[in-house]
Amino acid sequence: MKILIKDVLLENKTRDIFLNNGRIEVISDRCTLAADKIIDGSGKAAFPSFINGHTHAAMTLMRGYGDDMPLKEWLEEKIWPLEAKLTEEDVYWGSKLACLEMIKNGITVFNDMYWHWEGTARAVMDMGIRGFISAVFIDMFDRKRAERQREENIRLFEISKKYRPYVHFTLGPHAIYTVSEESLRWAGEFSEKNDILIHMHLSETKEETDFSINRYRMTPTRFLNEIGLLSERFIGCHGCMLNEGDCDIMRKTKAKLVHVPVSNLKLSVGRAFPIVHVAGIPFCFGTDGCASNNHLDIIETMKFASLLAKFFTKIPTFMPARVTFEKATEEAARIFRLGEWKIEEGLSPDIILIDLNRAEMVPNFDIYSDIVYASNGSIVDTVISMGRVVMEKRYVPGEEEIIEKARLIAHDLVRR
Amino acid sequence: MKILIKDVLLENKTRDIFLNNGRIEVISDRCTLAADKIIDGSGKAAFPSFINGHTHAAMTLMRGYGDDMPLKEWLEEKIWPLEAKLTEEDVYWGSKLACLEMIKNGITVFNDMYWHWEGTARAVMDMGIRGFISAVFIDMFDRKRAERQREENIRLFEISKKYRPYVHFTLGPHAIYTVSEESLRWAGEFSEKNDILIHMHLSETKEETDFSINRYRMTPTRFLNEIGLLSERFIGCHGCMLNEGDCDIMRKTKAKLVHVPVSNLKLSVGRAFPIVHVAGIPFCFGTDGCASNNHLDIIETMKFASLLAKFFTKIPTFMPARVTFEKATEEAARIFRLGEWKIEEGLSPDIILIDLNRAEMVPNFDIYSDIVYASNGSIVDTVISMGRVVMEKRYVPGEEEIIEKARLIAHDLVRR
Repeated sequence: MKILIKDVLLENKTRDIFLNNGRIEVISDRCTLAADKIIDGSGKAAFPSFINGHTHAAMTLMRGYGDDMPLKEWLEEKIWPLEAKLTEEDVYWGSKLACLEMIKNGITVFNDMYWHWEGTARAVMDMGIRGFISAVFIDMFDRKRAERQREENIRLFEISKKYRPYVHFTLGPHAIYTVSEESLRWAGEFSEKNDILIHMHLSETKEETDFSINRYRMTPTRFLNEIGLLSERFIGCHGCMLNEGDCDIMRKTKAKLVHVPVSNLKLSVGRAFPIVHVAGIPFCFGTDGCASNNHLDIIETMKFASLLAKFFTKIPTFMPARVTFEKATEEAARIFRLGEWKIEEGLSPDIILIDLNRAEMVPNFDIYSDIVYASNGSIVDTVISMGRVVMEKRYVPGEEEIIEKARLIAHDLVRR
Repeated sequence: MKILIKDVLLENKTRDIFLNNGRIEVISDRCTLAADKIIDGSGKAAFPSFINGHTHAAMTLMRGYGDDMPLKEWLEEKIWPLEAKLTEEDVYWGSKLACLEMIKNGITVFNDMYWHWEGTARAVMDMGIRGFISAVFIDMFDRKRAERQREENIRLFEISKKYRPYVHFTLGPHAIYTVSEESLRWAGEFSEKNDILIHMHLSETKEETDFSINRYRMTPTRFLNEIGLLSERFIGCHGCMLNEGDCDIMRKTKAKLVHVPVSNLKLSVGRAFPIVHVAGIPFCFGTDGCASNNHLDIIETMKFASLLAKFFTKIPTFMPARVTFEKATEEAARIFRLGEWKIEEGLSPDIILIDLNRAEMVPNFDIYSDIVYASNGSIVDTVISMGRVVMEKRYVPGEEEIIEKARLIAHDLVRR
């Protein structure tokens, strides 16, 4: 499919952009190549799309179901009983709702961990975006359960091939307090052998660190390094409790991080992401799932991350808008090995067009500042994923059905 | 003007709401009274509108002009030189842009402090919303300047009458480090005599507290109390540095606070609003001006405030969604003496309709949670201010002209 975007603002200049099957072939003042689809880009600016580094997509079904509760009560009385009743079909529609919300906010790639893997994979493929999808690998230190989990992950890795290029299978060992050392070692080996990314909760809470010190006499990061899990394929999410030694290990092993500030605040984890110590460790942003954020909007997450960084360092120049923006786009794409995520000839990033004719985008002295500090996902007008238009003028084909189905399923789920 | 809102969700029931010149006359299952305007409320929910407790409206013109800079350099090289060149016409268009942005985000009342008072007053009246508007009262401890300021405030108070009911004149002594004791005493007397609200920056930074201790041997709050400025008419903005003794004084004098979390983070003031100590002091939320937030969205501000409260207290149940929502509506209306700000027969709140058919509003288990944690101002579909529809289907009449004019003026301003 050939797409021509006419008269769009690109780095302060009005340009035409010509895409052939997702690859940017021409950027020029005036392009006359024949296209299957022409998009009027006037009054809009083009950027690479956003990447959501950590979420649990289908948890959109639980949005607002038990907020403002203590964690234990919330999990035991609300979330776990619901999750026990979930079917693959529920996960499919919950994930479709998440994909819809992410597309509306300019996100075309996300890193997921949840139950009923194929439900999420089907949703991602049907919505035409990209998911790095892991199953929830939890064995609770039980040998039988560990064995079943390993078999299941091998099976999913095999069937994941039929969902390409939309779906990338990843390993999702949940956290050190839910997965045995034996299984973690296995995940490390399987990841290396098959060149698969590992998606894991890391140093999210004090309880997790206490567990690790008690059981392994080491921090979670040091323990994971000892058993060979850390590498350039490892993506640790949250990282609030990382100390300087942990950060040294992350840098040495080339491991990656995902900063999830909104969830960390909402769940009162008690310690902020150590923004100064993580220097040199590649990181991007994650929204977390809708039970603990509850919004899949990376622009909102960027604002939280940038402002918290300034507040906690007491340096108002820390984490400026453009740096923040690039973490959610270019740096995130490097973490997920998607190539150069910039709008340049020869590259193949997903593309968003943002609407400049909105009050919050005026006067537009610095577009990165306007996006990060003055806007939210609703400024996104058009989304192009892998060379196909998935949203135009803020409309996603089929959105009415997704909203209706997901609403029905969620309300049915709590009554089941 | 008679307005009939049909089939709108109100506290979990579908109702018709009949308004006569802004007063809610009937709420029923089916209303057949004749109306000048009928609004289809299906798929929408009705709420009282939001109130923005602290801003500098015309600073929309400086949005994104010098972010991520150290405070001193930012003020001296960027903001002050621009402000010196501002005309009343600039302030008029900048304020109109701010009003447009606020209406889009469901805000119909705001508390303002800025230069060229009449520019803002005219903008508010022309946009059909309400502004509590103060001039910037700064005398820098200079007698001559103090005298001119007092005369100017008396003059503005008089002419403010012609802008009613849109505009309420308030006194705006800027802060204790910019206004002399003599002028502050005068403001207290003038406020009491004429029953006028006082809008002041209070305990925003450590520098302010240090100044107060050095000059007056007391905290700013204690000093203001000593000279008779604190009363139920006093509205102190920011309050980050308030200590327990200050909060006792605020409670005793029935003074009010405005919590401005986004600006406090962005400018790295170094200490969070003391959410526990302020118990019993009425407070609402403010966005601050667009040079230090840079977004006039109270929903965004509510999310920051609620999540920061949970994080800093380490209590995930603190400041739940509904409490947070009511501070931005009902409690704010009490602070500004606007009467009961609820959708009930006999009351006259401004009204917003929010769109429920959006991905982030699904499944809708708890609408307060969805608004505060999962959405932003873009969910607002319709805005009714003082009995008149000022936005419908997210369109504000004249918005194109405002965007174009404000953009031109802002870019001209930096070149002047």
